[in-house]
Amino acid sequence: GHRAGLVPGDSDILVIARQLHEGNALAGVLLHAGGSYHCETDAEKAAAAEVERQAAVRTAESIRAEGMQVSMVSVGSTPTAHYAENLEGVTEVRAGVYVFQDLVMAGIHVCALEDIAIGVVATVIGHRPDKGWILCDAGWMALSRDRGTAKQAVDQGYGVVTALDGEVYPDLIVANTSQEHGVMMLREGSEAALPDLPIGTKICVLPNHACATASQFEEYVVSDDRHTQATRWSRINGW
Amino acid sequence: GHRAGLVPGDSDILVIARQLHEGNALAGVLLHAGGSYHCETDAEKAAAAEVERQAAVRTAESIRAEGMQVSMVSVGSTPTAHYAENLEGVTEVRAGVYVFQDLVMAGIHVCALEDIAIGVVATVIGHRPDKGWILCDAGWMALSRDRGTAKQAVDQGYGVVTALDGEVYPDLIVANTSQEHGVMMLREGSEAALPDLPIGTKICVLPNHACATASQFEEYVVSDDRHTQATRWSRINGW
Repeated sequence: GHRAGLVPGDSDILVIARQLHEGNALAGVLLHAGGSYHCETDAEKAAAAEVERQAAVRTAESIRAEGMQVSMVSVGSTPTAHYAENLEGVTEVRAGVYVFQDLVMAGIHVCALEDIAIGVVATVIGHRPDKGWILCDAGWMALSRDRGTAKQAVDQGYGVVTALDGEVYPDLIVANTSQEHGVMMLREGSEAALPDLPIGTKICVLPNHACATASQFEEYVVSDDRHTQATRWSRINGW
Repeated sequence: GHRAGLVPGDSDILVIARQLHEGNALAGVLLHAGGSYHCETDAEKAAAAEVERQAAVRTAESIRAEGMQVSMVSVGSTPTAHYAENLEGVTEVRAGVYVFQDLVMAGIHVCALEDIAIGVVATVIGHRPDKGWILCDAGWMALSRDRGTAKQAVDQGYGVVTALDGEVYPDLIVANTSQEHGVMMLREGSEAALPDLPIGTKICVLPNHACATASQFEEYVVSDDRHTQATRWSRINGW
């Protein structure tokens, strides 16, 4: 309803279902509960999941009531997939970001920062002590321009900075980016000290949005627990 | 000065130049006049080019005055590359966007809309007449999240929509995007009529920022004047 598609209860649903049915192309109904990304509390996310389920199941039933077969009832979003309490009538739950999690999901308490399984490894390339900046070689070409936390309770800039072992540097975020550079700064109002990161230090940036950041790369580098061995997995990009 | 690097006149420039010289690694000086992206008038752009030139040439001269050789004096940005009136002392002008031009450059009158030589071809996939929307299959995965015109005099959303022959649909822009969908709408306040674009119609979206949009793709499709033949050129992506 907020993006494309028809709103539950729209009479065009049955018209379109009939056309698909007659063309032998009616498989089912599909929703994406994108609105769940704005749910703060567990109760709100569980409620969003139930609204999503009911919209899908009732739409499927209205089509079945017209004598047509609906085999697939597909719902999904990472928050509702995690918080659904009842999936009766649903045949498929789709969720994407849950594979990695990201800062947007952490911001609505679907996961913790330490659950985020994707990051961009970058190198410290300079300092601007006059401005409180540490520069790295990951700008928006590497991190994407996604600012999905901008309107959340905690704005994470272009990403949270950690050491390679995953330890978060307190209050250090990529506050600004240009095409090839990232500017790491302490979060506004922080009383933490800027960490000592000499030129050449490798750091890791946790992304706002796993989808947007991953799409900037042609492959994943998958490391073992000790970061000593790495495998490369290719991606399918494009749209 | 606004991003990385040292400000003209900083005494550290000579210290670093000396270190590089002693390591036999001093090639020259390099600037990027990114501030020129905010120049509206021709006179402002010409003035920015001269400021850029003087900063580069004077810095090079200050290093030469210490007995070191500076062979390269490199400046550049698409606006200053176009509007420079004097390049004395400069050995290299770098500009990137000028290859294609884009809406940001059109917004500061470096080019006209019809000069923009890059666009994303997409397909109309739906209509929401209740909202005045035409949906296409290019979202921010295809167009990038760059909103470089957001603070310009004319905000072009995620891009200006044209027919495949380049003819601009009056006031039609991609006003919103989700990951795989674009929402085309008339510009706010427009009195134009929404064009009749049936599902399946191919349209073209001119990008805000050629660099950001091109980086979403692995190759260019280069067409002849009549759009009957196309060649594919590969890109180097990554950072």
